[in-house]
Amino acid sequence: MNKPLFERVALIGIGLIGSSLARVIRRDFPETKIVACARRPETLEAVRRLNLADETTDDPAAAVAGADLVVFATPLSAYAETGRRIAPALRDGAIVTDVGSVKTIAIRDLKPVLPAHVHFVPGHPVAGTEHSGPESGFAELFHERWCILTPLPETDPKAIAKVKALWESAGSRVATMPADHHDKVLAMTSHLPHLIAYTIVGTATDLEEDLKSEVIAYSAGGFRDFTRIAASDPTMWRDIFVANREAVLEMLQRYSEDLTALQRAIRRGDGDTLYDWFARTRTIRRSIIEAKQA
Amino acid sequence: MNKPLFERVALIGIGLIGSSLARVIRRDFPETKIVACARRPETLEAVRRLNLADETTDDPAAAVAGADLVVFATPLSAYAETGRRIAPALRDGAIVTDVGSVKTIAIRDLKPVLPAHVHFVPGHPVAGTEHSGPESGFAELFHERWCILTPLPETDPKAIAKVKALWESAGSRVATMPADHHDKVLAMTSHLPHLIAYTIVGTATDLEEDLKSEVIAYSAGGFRDFTRIAASDPTMWRDIFVANREAVLEMLQRYSEDLTALQRAIRRGDGDTLYDWFARTRTIRRSIIEAKQA
Repeated sequence: MNKPLFERVALIGIGLIGSSLARVIRRDFPETKIVACARRPETLEAVRRLNLADETTDDPAAAVAGADLVVFATPLSAYAETGRRIAPALRDGAIVTDVGSVKTIAIRDLKPVLPAHVHFVPGHPVAGTEHSGPESGFAELFHERWCILTPLPETDPKAIAKVKALWESAGSRVATMPADHHDKVLAMTSHLPHLIAYTIVGTATDLEEDLKSEVIAYSAGGFRDFTRIAASDPTMWRDIFVANREAVLEMLQRYSEDLTALQRAIRRGDGDTLYDWFARTRTIRRSIIEAKQA
Repeated sequence: MNKPLFERVALIGIGLIGSSLARVIRRDFPETKIVACARRPETLEAVRRLNLADETTDDPAAAVAGADLVVFATPLSAYAETGRRIAPALRDGAIVTDVGSVKTIAIRDLKPVLPAHVHFVPGHPVAGTEHSGPESGFAELFHERWCILTPLPETDPKAIAKVKALWESAGSRVATMPADHHDKVLAMTSHLPHLIAYTIVGTATDLEEDLKSEVIAYSAGGFRDFTRIAASDPTMWRDIFVANREAVLEMLQRYSEDLTALQRAIRRGDGDTLYDWFARTRTIRRSIIEAKQA
């Protein structure tokens, strides 16, 4: 049995990511007490049924009392208000971290409300599925995936090291970078792909009824990969796009210019331009396979 | 052992699809003779090494001599010229089919050059992977996937039935529809998704060097699904976009309008519009799971 990294962990929000982390803690640090906080009674009921926590509550201030690690795993739009509510209850020297997908906004909303006597270590496990809720989690979700930490210049290195150790226990590779850089990289690798998938699946649902049913029937040709992505949690993704607006719009602008160029090539029957583009993208896939992220 | 549907099958082109079909025929109809035709000597060498054919040749006219089934499995741009070359060598009553992704163009290019004494049954197995070449094929590729036939009004029903039986043996569900309708449905389910994936992966490769390497490293967040699609065969896809220009441009126009609407919602911080859109696309995924195409 591992020596526990933390005595008492408060999970604020326990959906796909929060419940997967709870499973990791249960597996690797069975002595650690877990408190799960969620707004909806049926979520807490599921947490109890799945034995993912030792205590459950819908009051975030009660949840963090005595915790030496507090993990924000709610949609981003809940950070500021929840942060204000837990602030007075936070234990001296507690570590506060999060799993949100937009780090500049996590910092903007949490840093001003957290008391000076806690350590704030913003984080983002780059992992997920199209499913949501505590039933969907699994301990292996983070295995061989990146977890990106975006600590502030003043963050205590010991607090960073403890959060890092937790994610390494989950099987993640941990990287550290500035929050604004994280948000640009993720705008390209995650936010824009999701936006595009959401768009095209919506476009398909607006087709005339006869075409639409066939689009579903014959979706094996590429479309179904997009529908999987476009089935991701709507609240979480709404918050991501609102929060990472600048970076998403910048990447979207670049993408739209490229799409227009390919559209023009199609209209003109310019096969050479299409071929050159398609041959180039094939090599990126190979890089990703070499980087072991495929 | 099944009674052979065909005595002698000529596969004109033997990449991912052609070689998978060869494996199906080897498995289900071992008495059937297979002739494989390809331009490149290394392709024919691989076919012999893998024992996918009884005879190999780079001359399509020689390949079809005596065949009662001829399968076009080359890129679409080779159809017209190859059709002209094989026409004089086709046996009386032979069935000519194809596996191309754009049926109006397959008909436009092949119908005028084929002699009246053969039966033309255009077809499209809606299946594939991002890999190409005869080494990449496997007999299960078509299992539980659709194969769409787009016969002409004058096509002999007996010829259609034999092609249908071959694809059913491959494990496919076979549907029949007009060629122009097929091309519209596939523009949405397959061609547009590929165009979008090719675009965004290309956009990412144009990023500044430091961002680019991180896009590869952190691709787990959605991007890698796109890179898989964007690794598909460049020649085949160049031909598809040139051939299905009208339908692709129409679907692209609808998609671009929707993307602009979501872009506007992001710029204005209009979370309600985003949420409603994302919640709607989730239901399409459920339809696809119910249609057993996920």
